[in-house]
Amino acid sequence: MLGRLYEDQDCAAARALELVGERWSLLILRDALFAGYTRFSEFQRRLGVAPNILAKRLESFVEAGIMEMRPSASGSEHATYALTPKGLDFKPVVMTLTQWGEKWSTPGPVDIVHAGCGGLVQERPVCAACGAEPRPGDIHVRLRKGRDGKRPIKRA
Amino acid sequence: MLGRLYEDQDCAAARALELVGERWSLLILRDALFAGYTRFSEFQRRLGVAPNILAKRLESFVEAGIMEMRPSASGSEHATYALTPKGLDFKPVVMTLTQWGEKWSTPGPVDIVHAGCGGLVQERPVCAACGAEPRPGDIHVRLRKGRDGKRPIKRA
Repeated sequence: MLGRLYEDQDCAAARALELVGERWSLLILRDALFAGYTRFSEFQRRLGVAPNILAKRLESFVEAGIMEMRPSASGSEHATYALTPKGLDFKPVVMTLTQWGEKWSTPGPVDIVHAGCGGLVQERPVCAACGAEPRPGDIHVRLRKGRDGKRPIKRA
Repeated sequence: MLGRLYEDQDCAAARALELVGERWSLLILRDALFAGYTRFSEFQRRLGVAPNILAKRLESFVEAGIMEMRPSASGSEHATYALTPKGLDFKPVVMTLTQWGEKWSTPGPVDIVHAGCGGLVQERPVCAACGAEPRPGDIHVRLRKGRDGKRPIKRA
């Protein structure tokens, strides 16, 4: 990922973007998360992305622990790319991005729904202390105790 | 934004990425949303990004209606870049990205808190029908009624 780091940014969002911020990355994850795609050919057909780019992205997801390669269930020689718990946990990012696009750009063709009851699901901000759902303007950042804003030593 | 479109993707997330998916875009929005930056020099100092890139990104945000240029309050000749409602509404995307990075990559230096009570705020999935908070595996997509999966005519 040379040239794709945000080295001076002490920020969890910047770290996340180093793993998923390349062109096509988020759409590949979208299809893995919501279309259930695991095969190279599925991603390729849906996205129409150049095979060398797709291969590079999938490889970087495996390297980052977001996906893992598994032998194909159908016995074909092609491996599949399955989301790990780290990858599955990325769903909220795709959801908030979709919600924003639905509201402010062009609506897409799908609803995001709860498998249990079929109701619409949205990501919403919730305060763990008082249970309120704060408006965007009432959500701030606060320096964590013991942190001086310098980037911590990177963990292996 | 030539070459940065995802033209064949009928998807609100893809539309969103066309507006905010360039390198540095999300970190500029992060600083506008959470650090309250509005001046070119503030973004530049914090991000260390090349001025021509920063100028291009801010310009594209203005063009997309995410920011608007305003005369500087201090009376200096430099305009400021203020988030519009469309830009302010992007906060949940930065929050989910931060949450994911905090959990799966390197924690950052800040907590996201509720201005009202100081409690920690997180984006959480909520079902509008039954009120449950579905697990990621219980959140699916469903083709919206009247939609055949083809990209709609783009609205002006």
